[in-house]
Amino acid sequence: MTWARIKAADGQILGGIVADQRLSPMAGIGGGPAGPAVSMQGATLLAPCVPGKFIGLWNNYHAAAARNGWAAPTHPLHFLKPVTCVVGDGADVVLPQAAGRVVFEGELGIVIGTRCHTATEAEAEAAIFGYTCVNDLTSVDILNADPAFAQWTRAKGFDGFGVIGPVVVPGLDWRDLTIRTLVNGRERQSYPASDMIFSPPQIVRHLSRDMTLMPGDVIAVGTSLGTRPVKPADQVTVSIEGIGSVTVTMLADPNAVSGA
Amino acid sequence: MTWARIKAADGQILGGIVADQRLSPMAGIGGGPAGPAVSMQGATLLAPCVPGKFIGLWNNYHAAAARNGWAAPTHPLHFLKPVTCVVGDGADVVLPQAAGRVVFEGELGIVIGTRCHTATEAEAEAAIFGYTCVNDLTSVDILNADPAFAQWTRAKGFDGFGVIGPVVVPGLDWRDLTIRTLVNGRERQSYPASDMIFSPPQIVRHLSRDMTLMPGDVIAVGTSLGTRPVKPADQVTVSIEGIGSVTVTMLADPNAVSGA
Repeated sequence: MTWARIKAADGQILGGIVADQRLSPMAGIGGGPAGPAVSMQGATLLAPCVPGKFIGLWNNYHAAAARNGWAAPTHPLHFLKPVTCVVGDGADVVLPQAAGRVVFEGELGIVIGTRCHTATEAEAEAAIFGYTCVNDLTSVDILNADPAFAQWTRAKGFDGFGVIGPVVVPGLDWRDLTIRTLVNGRERQSYPASDMIFSPPQIVRHLSRDMTLMPGDVIAVGTSLGTRPVKPADQVTVSIEGIGSVTVTMLADPNAVSGA
Repeated sequence: MTWARIKAADGQILGGIVADQRLSPMAGIGGGPAGPAVSMQGATLLAPCVPGKFIGLWNNYHAAAARNGWAAPTHPLHFLKPVTCVVGDGADVVLPQAAGRVVFEGELGIVIGTRCHTATEAEAEAAIFGYTCVNDLTSVDILNADPAFAQWTRAKGFDGFGVIGPVVVPGLDWRDLTIRTLVNGRERQSYPASDMIFSPPQIVRHLSRDMTLMPGDVIAVGTSLGTRPVKPADQVTVSIEGIGSVTVTMLADPNAVSGA
């Protein structure tokens, strides 16, 4: 079973369950049936959900923490990406001149399936609808531009900086997954999800104490070693076996001012 | 003219323009007419909008910067509050045990009226639908709990920590406004909006380069001197002449563990 959101051949935008090259529309993730099945023929995949919240984690892999000398956190360290930054497979992503140096961060994404508040770890696990691929694009220049205030949201919030997709897949065992990032076909990240500091059920349990999680909310669980800068014309792919690949093309800023 | 969102006497939830004790429903802020006018009699005011993004600013008042020794920023320093934290006038707000010390922050809130990206300052000013009162409740213990990562979103994101209301008022001159916060009727903050470092049009201009702003998005422009801790049973009011007052009651955590 796979969850996708599509622009169908007739222009309708639908989210639902895909099987046998047909999509059975649903009233959002966690919602009921919403009309007859449509063909996937001629359909375009969109970002697989429209999150109300797009949460990202920092410092959630043992290997990255060890390499960078970071202490393991006692609670997931999180920030929010603005929902307007979400794009799906095949998108063009502008590198704003003001963003300076931008890096890719290939990540596993959790998609929430049911409303979730002060959950136990078992309830948290049950609230996970499925998993998707995330590229949490980040301006490292902006993140550290002001010594008094780390600008997580600004650095990670430009339109197109939240790549998710191509679909959401329920029922996977996250321990078996490997997150790979490729730039122009060359592998630049490959690390096991099993190296996470907080597991997906632990993340959802903790976050459900910080806020109420809702169906369709996306949690990017953090990246590990190997992030690198991107440049205009790069094709950047995040790929997880069992989910698929999501690729975007980086573009130069059409409004760039020479010499600025 | 005033924008409100109500639960009408018959249970319908409607947003729209209020005049002569009647509300003319609209299809969201910036949307067109959406049905016949209804009486405000017996209606309950809700949070005046359902923002897709709830942005907050840090360090945007000269007086607070001077007192705390903060340098004036060169770009608005912002974070996001999760949209699930929004409540309106009359709400009860739980103080989670994990949040520790929580302070009120009375603020002016900008409500966006039209989609806005890479705006000029004049376009930014035109994209402002109106102003509301905000109480940007903040756990100061969580904000500074991890020395490697300031937890802005977690500290400010608990359910109920984003108080907005009672209504949105277009056409005000922000330079004339005074933001007051009262706890149990006693004035604890009173400062002029004219002391802002970045003005509302400047804030919207800058933010529209960081992300696409959408109708109904809320921007809390930062607080000034006088924030203080709140405790269970406190009634906390943010009041701005020309907009009105928004009051919430703080509650103890019903799930608090003794000795924890």
